[in-house]
Amino acid sequence: MRVIGIDPGLRNLGWGVIDVIGTRLRHVGNGVCHSAGDDLASRLLSLHVQLSDVVTRFAPDAAAVEQTFVNKDGAGTLKLGQARGIAMLVPAQAGLRVGEYAPNKVKKTVVGVGHADKGQVAHMVRLQLPGVDLAGPDAADALAIAICHAHHVQTAGQYEAALRKATA
Amino acid sequence: MRVIGIDPGLRNLGWGVIDVIGTRLRHVGNGVCHSAGDDLASRLLSLHVQLSDVVTRFAPDAAAVEQTFVNKDGAGTLKLGQARGIAMLVPAQAGLRVGEYAPNKVKKTVVGVGHADKGQVAHMVRLQLPGVDLAGPDAADALAIAICHAHHVQTAGQYEAALRKATA
Repeated sequence: MRVIGIDPGLRNLGWGVIDVIGTRLRHVGNGVCHSAGDDLASRLLSLHVQLSDVVTRFAPDAAAVEQTFVNKDGAGTLKLGQARGIAMLVPAQAGLRVGEYAPNKVKKTVVGVGHADKGQVAHMVRLQLPGVDLAGPDAADALAIAICHAHHVQTAGQYEAALRKATA
Repeated sequence: MRVIGIDPGLRNLGWGVIDVIGTRLRHVGNGVCHSAGDDLASRLLSLHVQLSDVVTRFAPDAAAVEQTFVNKDGAGTLKLGQARGIAMLVPAQAGLRVGEYAPNKVKKTVVGVGHADKGQVAHMVRLQLPGVDLAGPDAADALAIAICHAHHVQTAGQYEAALRKATA
């Protein structure tokens, strides 16, 4: 199974693709889409074009997007929401189901604690994906989201397998 | 010039299309896209498909989207932001420039006061587009946004014409 993780942002949108083979993880690619354009619509279009290209190029089977942190700055939340709309739309257009994980869920899964900093996340991503060359903190976060989704799908799979066994 | 106005919302996204012939306005179409789907990504995809269909069908030359009201409810702002991302993306994908107007700017242009209620907006939309059959309050708001854009483009056009005359 190939998973794309997406860390939405209007200025910098991180993405990371991993392969999940049984319980093993393999790094496939990661990067950051930078929005270009002098107005909001152009910037959203630019993100859509770049992220669609990534999804076409790597052809993932599943997607996961970070649940945006709702802060007290309404204007910031709105900007992030608009970028997140694009981040959710692109994999949906490719026919993928899109998982959503809160930032502290991602950190708890990948680092073990919910309030890890960006350095710890990047460190654990490097440990779990040996040899990975990170395009930046947003790309590291995106790979962490993909790893989180892989773990949850595996856990759900084991649960379903156990259920099948119990009811067989 | 044909203008589409869009009133973004995750559940109900209003749209309205008018033709601007000199200083005259003519109603072309209006409606509401209702998002379908059991998860957020599917609902955003559903809005994208419906709104893209409207833009293809009516082939507007310009677009305007209401600037979302940033309220104190962060989760609500985020939802609206995601829908607004789609509302901005679709016309940009069709190569249109997308104007943005704050709700009180729209009301001030169409009704004359910044704090008009929905009933007043619908009333003035009916007055300015005789014979229009409104699909609902969100569609009326979308037509008001299109009318607001038409007025501002006309005013800008008159200003540019005056400038050309003054510098001729």
